[in-house]
Amino acid sequence: MDRDDQLEELGADTCLRLLSTVPVGRVVYTEHALPAVLPVSFEVAPDGRLLLAVRRGSATARGLDGTVVAFQADQLDPVTRTGWSVLVHGRADVLRDPELVRRALRSGLRPWVGDPDPMFVSLVPELISGRRLAPSGRPVPHS
Amino acid sequence: MDRDDQLEELGADTCLRLLSTVPVGRVVYTEHALPAVLPVSFEVAPDGRLLLAVRRGSATARGLDGTVVAFQADQLDPVTRTGWSVLVHGRADVLRDPELVRRALRSGLRPWVGDPDPMFVSLVPELISGRRLAPSGRPVPHS
Repeated sequence: MDRDDQLEELGADTCLRLLSTVPVGRVVYTEHALPAVLPVSFEVAPDGRLLLAVRRGSATARGLDGTVVAFQADQLDPVTRTGWSVLVHGRADVLRDPELVRRALRSGLRPWVGDPDPMFVSLVPELISGRRLAPSGRPVPHS
Repeated sequence: MDRDDQLEELGADTCLRLLSTVPVGRVVYTEHALPAVLPVSFEVAPDGRLLLAVRRGSATARGLDGTVVAFQADQLDPVTRTGWSVLVHGRADVLRDPELVRRALRSGLRPWVGDPDPMFVSLVPELISGRRLAPSGRPVPHS
């Protein structure tokens, strides 16, 4: 799709590993028939699911539950113009199993804006894609 | 919508001013019937339009032209949990007027991954929304 070797397409395992290095991503869902994009705290669970922390009762919590969403995170250095961007599509469901909620609470994951009673959303990745960017003339670092 | 005073809804003028302080945002468009989210370099033009720099011939350039897109940028500090997030909806069109293209080239705006022959996309905001976040117990800073 992209002809330039400054872009390296990343495999799903690398994408999940990179996702686990950042605390915040952006979830895309539909609100009033328009795409809403909102930063959310998240973590990658050992089984590869993403766990998002949202504010209980918020429009985000309602808008995500039971829908297919896109989730994006990146790490970009504007000086060197290097970095990566990962995009995940999958089904989001509010975590209702009390044991799973307790586990999420114990992990310390909290919404970006502090909430004494957070709500967690599980996102099961169905499609994972990502790209690493390297500036012109510099080889793409591998890891 | 959000009951918490840790979130301050921002007016359109403040949103555009904040957007002009960051070099990269994320554009949301439809690709293969799924929402694609991609980091893009951009700037705010004096008339309030956003100007996005994309790689000529890329799927992004094709996917954006003549469509209504969402564009999001934020600046978030994971330590203090402060920051802002702005969301814009509007129509995107590849810039074709030679004088406007020359002006964009002169401004120095370039795609995130360097391209000797960039393509510019004009985004006319129709809806602008944003929120500033402050941590619990700390007043929201005004500016």
